[in-house]
Amino acid sequence: MYSFKNDYSEGAHPKILKALIDSNLEQEDGYGEDRFSQIAVELIKKRLGRTDVDVHLLAGGTQTNLTAISAFLRPHEAAIAASSGHIYTHETGAIEATGHKVLAIDTEDGKLTPALILKVLDYHTDEHMVKPKLVYISNSTEIGTIYRKGELQELSDFCHEHNLILYMDGARLGSALCSEENDLGLSELAELVDAFYIGGTKNGALLGEALVICRDSLKEDFRFHIKQKGGMLAKGRILGIQFLELFRENLFFELADHANKMAGLLTAEFCKMNVRFLTQSTTNQIFPILSNSVIKELQKTYGFHIWEKIDPDHSAIRLVTSWATKEEAIREFIEDIKKY
Amino acid sequence: MYSFKNDYSEGAHPKILKALIDSNLEQEDGYGEDRFSQIAVELIKKRLGRTDVDVHLLAGGTQTNLTAISAFLRPHEAAIAASSGHIYTHETGAIEATGHKVLAIDTEDGKLTPALILKVLDYHTDEHMVKPKLVYISNSTEIGTIYRKGELQELSDFCHEHNLILYMDGARLGSALCSEENDLGLSELAELVDAFYIGGTKNGALLGEALVICRDSLKEDFRFHIKQKGGMLAKGRILGIQFLELFRENLFFELADHANKMAGLLTAEFCKMNVRFLTQSTTNQIFPILSNSVIKELQKTYGFHIWEKIDPDHSAIRLVTSWATKEEAIREFIEDIKKY
Amino acid sequence: MYSFKNDYSEGAHPKILKALIDSNLEQEDGYGEDRFSQIAVELIKKRLGRTDVDVHLLAGGTQTNLTAISAFLRPHEAAIAASSGHIYTHETGAIEATGHKVLAIDTEDGKLTPALILKVLDYHTDEHMVKPKLVYISNSTEIGTIYRKGELQELSDFCHEHNLILYMDGARLGSALCSEENDLGLSELAELVDAFYIGGTKNGALLGEALVICRDSLKEDFRFHIKQKGGMLAKGRILGIQFLELFRENLFFELADHANKMAGLLTAEFCKMNVRFLTQSTTNQIFPILSNSVIKELQKTYGFHIWEKIDPDHSAIRLVTSWATKEEAIREFIEDIKKY
Amino acid sequence: MYSFKNDYSEGAHPKILKALIDSNLEQEDGYGEDRFSQIAVELIKKRLGRTDVDVHLLAGGTQTNLTAISAFLRPHEAAIAASSGHIYTHETGAIEATGHKVLAIDTEDGKLTPALILKVLDYHTDEHMVKPKLVYISNSTEIGTIYRKGELQELSDFCHEHNLILYMDGARLGSALCSEENDLGLSELAELVDAFYIGGTKNGALLGEALVICRDSLKEDFRFHIKQKGGMLAKGRILGIQFLELFRENLFFELADHANKMAGLLTAEFCKMNVRFLTQSTTNQIFPILSNSVIKELQKTYGFHIWEKIDPDHSAIRLVTSWATKEEAIREFIEDIKKY
Repeated sequence: MYSFKNDYSEGAHPKILKALIDSNLEQEDGYGEDRFSQIAVELIKKRLGRTDVDVHLLAGGTQTNLTAISAFLRPHEAAIAASSGHIYTHETGAIEATGHKVLAIDTEDGKLTPALILKVLDYHTDEHMVKPKLVYISNSTEIGTIYRKGELQELSDFCHEHNLILYMDGARLGSALCSEENDLGLSELAELVDAFYIGGTKNGALLGEALVICRDSLKEDFRFHIKQKGGMLAKGRILGIQFLELFRENLFFELADHANKMAGLLTAEFCKMNVRFLTQSTTNQIFPILSNSVIKELQKTYGFHIWEKIDPDHSAIRLVTSWATKEEAIREFIEDIKKY
Repeated sequence: MYSFKNDYSEGAHPKILKALIDSNLEQEDGYGEDRFSQIAVELIKKRLGRTDVDVHLLAGGTQTNLTAISAFLRPHEAAIAASSGHIYTHETGAIEATGHKVLAIDTEDGKLTPALILKVLDYHTDEHMVKPKLVYISNSTEIGTIYRKGELQELSDFCHEHNLILYMDGARLGSALCSEENDLGLSELAELVDAFYIGGTKNGALLGEALVICRDSLKEDFRFHIKQKGGMLAKGRILGIQFLELFRENLFFELADHANKMAGLLTAEFCKMNVRFLTQSTTNQIFPILSNSVIKELQKTYGFHIWEKIDPDHSAIRLVTSWATKEEAIREFIEDIKKY
Repeated sequence: MYSFKNDYSEGAHPKILKALIDSNLEQEDGYGEDRFSQIAVELIKKRLGRTDVDVHLLAGGTQTNLTAISAFLRPHEAAIAASSGHIYTHETGAIEATGHKVLAIDTEDGKLTPALILKVLDYHTDEHMVKPKLVYISNSTEIGTIYRKGELQELSDFCHEHNLILYMDGARLGSALCSEENDLGLSELAELVDAFYIGGTKNGALLGEALVICRDSLKEDFRFHIKQKGGMLAKGRILGIQFLELFRENLFFELADHANKMAGLLTAEFCKMNVRFLTQSTTNQIFPILSNSVIKELQKTYGFHIWEKIDPDHSAIRLVTSWATKEEAIREFIEDIKKY
Repeated sequence: MYSFKNDYSEGAHPKILKALIDSNLEQEDGYGEDRFSQIAVELIKKRLGRTDVDVHLLAGGTQTNLTAISAFLRPHEAAIAASSGHIYTHETGAIEATGHKVLAIDTEDGKLTPALILKVLDYHTDEHMVKPKLVYISNSTEIGTIYRKGELQELSDFCHEHNLILYMDGARLGSALCSEENDLGLSELAELVDAFYIGGTKNGALLGEALVICRDSLKEDFRFHIKQKGGMLAKGRILGIQFLELFRENLFFELADHANKMAGLLTAEFCKMNVRFLTQSTTNQIFPILSNSVIKELQKTYGFHIWEKIDPDHSAIRLVTSWATKEEAIREFIEDIKKY
């Protein structure tokens, strides 16, 4: 049984494990004040070409989202998200649990646009309603699509014009930036969004996300919020060591690139077979639409999620590749699917 | 510079790292539903001699405390803690951030007693005040003391009589259970408290705490709370693998025992030198009272926290040992201190 | 300028004011423990034919909703509401501010049905999503429609079958119960829902809502929640006196009946003029669809809200009548509208 | 049985009731946007000699405290209060329920000083603890004492120097300002504190507190918070009408003055009898220390609270006078007490 269920089925990339082992007995301060974390933060800043951003290492994605969003908003302010957005559907009301409404917008492709956001703003006119304040986007999105530079520029301009905070969930940012249709540089992100995170968990780390706060007014006292929400690891070094390794050279991008390539092989093959897709993805999550009988056969040998019923006879499934996906596994899957 | 600052200065015990490496490329389900976590949970239950408890693996101590306490209480209910309790002073208001007051009691030794708790109950008489509902204790306490079985039995009886939830923060439970004055078995804990956690982070793991919920009424839907509060790791396997290793044989106790022994060496030596202590600790945190001039000298070569001013010329310092503390380091420290 | 903007444009019914004056200098205990409140509670219980319900008097509707819903739910549980529901759109995220997501369902007529709720339940399958637990309905709804007995019975059966709490916002319960199409008795309500409130503010009181808790498991410690959320008035007597007057004889129903009759006069007249309505209302809020030019003329002499654009030339307006609406004002309005 | 239990035993001053009646049938906008509220706000601003403050009318004291404090603070920030402070002991954890810790300081006289606050600041050094940010004081205090101008000036200077928000709970502000030892003008308050409220409920209104926000940075979007926390009355007019009447001429001060005078009569008489007091109060709450046998006798004819045991034979009782206290009742009480 080979799993395409997600991009966190395995542990960490061997280089990361090695870094953990090599540093294991060095004594370090706790709570992210170790040297490794400090170096990792510097490496990320360097990669962004910005010395004036704040970078914090947190344990997981939901943790990062809820800590950042609750720190950035006042009690009456709300987040806007696509209705497919992770904070809206798959975080057990984590944002609401910190007191904030999430206003959801239905989208075709999991992406927000100024026009979609404007409707929400227009609807919220007075103090009897929440005040929309933060725009939450994911890149890549939960359905594999990405924001191109021009789209993000438009969103950025719109948000700043309307005094909104633009926040990007980058759980799969590596995959987005390594997509063949991507034209956005990591260093450009810090210019366009007010805060974002660089996902480690889904790109080869054991755990860890690097939150980058670009807008000055959002930086103050942020470590208080990490601690209060339970996200400050005593051995913060394990986050530092991993991000150091990911950004020491190019590991972060190499791993994401591999994941995308593996998904690309699958996509190419499905296209040859005239299989349609639920979404147009060039990242590491793809959603082919297959007949239920084929799906049933595949389930005998492969692990994956059935995403959505399309018609009585067809469903979209989700196949996720990762840094750890072996090309042979892809080849075998393709061979198998040809049989049905 | 050798650090006695805390018990999380190094990474993980080599056996734990090895277990992470050995399992690294096995594919597993996420979010704690992997085989390793399931086995770890079973091992812990077995060690407790109880199949009817629920065990959840979480990333850190503050995370565990805030998730459990907010899940267990209704909005108007409060926790009672010693004023030295971790949730009262060192978690940035994490419990209050979930909506609950923490009622603090000053104590001599960091430990709560029925008499101390009764005063709080007597004071809270009606709906204009919060309703005290959960008793939070730490074992070992934040100042190194431990609860003996009889003391815990009395607390347990009192809590159940007064319909209070008894919750134990076990960040340093290993050290408590391995203390030479301890007469409490891990398996007895589940009979005496309603919930507690077994600390991994401060006893040789990279991260991780195992929350044990003993009272049936507290179990329902607990995974929702873990997810909502951001504590559910995508690669939950890394918690499972570590606790599996800690409880596969006796590693958990061996590591705690070592930490205690190292502290014991220091304590014995200080006693010979007629050094007084702030608290009577038989665990891995000791608080000798030294002259400020000696402290100043020690700071040149050793890392530790100055805990409390005693008089203009003396202060108590905190020395913490761990699974990783080397006996040579202890010997050297003792030699050094003799010089001053 | 005569206002049809809402049913709280005037003060209180003269009988209520008189009761306030007559009792003014009697000394009473505070916080709802006065004799008037106690009598009012007994009168309401009597009217419900139930001695086993708890009745609490609170200051306002949003206050009542947020206090009740946050008291009834655990942190991971969510409320389900129509997307037109007051808690979803017009309470500034008050429910979310207590930590709970509100799951909204689009409806034709502002009313929930088992089929609509079932879809929400089916979608929420595991701990990565909130757990739907409370069904919030309004009667009459925010768009003037009402629940008939059979509909409420079905909802009630469904909720109990699925272990959901059924909660009714009765800000305009008087108007619903006095509607000509209503077949539901106040006494039957307590059998069908788990909690509901009887709205005073919008039916002749200066302020005040009477929350009725029918399900035993929801009753415990409720006064703590009222106090904690700021809804316990020091001079709770003013709520008691008003509800006593509303339920001493039949004032509550007489006032609602008058409001409905006034709306009925308008409705009948609009029908004669072949004016269409946005919703089918037999209560004190009606939503005729008028041409924008007519609306413009009416705005010169009357106050009302424009509710929704229908097409480039037409809009639905909201006309609200109350216990204080004078029949002459209705007659004049009808004369005026005939002119355009 | 005559009650000295509190200053909210009766309804409203007759002038206030009359104003409610006179305006009863005028149609007004809801939610505090009525003309009465607007005039009341202007009158208060005029009395403060400040056009640049924001004034909001809310229903009650706990409501005002929790709305203001949660609006003013970020999630990791805490309030500092005397341990006798209302928010710390008698609001059922209302502030904590909005997510904020209240740091309590034991005091002799219920009053905070720079030295007391400094200790709290010094103790809170890093992100593992909450950040003290708002200083909560009550004037008069919960035990009848008041802040003199010089004391408040020192607090004000200290708070601004340390970037703290100074907030005054004025539930009994009238009594404080009318105390014979008072040297503080209402108009000076707005210079010295960042926000405060003028209590109506305990000074002759049916209900209502006027919150004054002086510091610009605290003003933004405040009405959102009132609505979200449930404190925005649909018939906001009833708050406006009452404050209009209280500040149209001098009713607010006349009523407070009367209450103080009545307490003064009691105090003078107790002094003649060499009765000691628990606190030195020149306001409308006094705390004479009486023998338990005398207390027992008094309880037969008078209502009051026993505040604190002093020794096995004596207790302090609390006697509260109000705008409604009749001089004859005081005279009778004095005669009665002389008997025992």
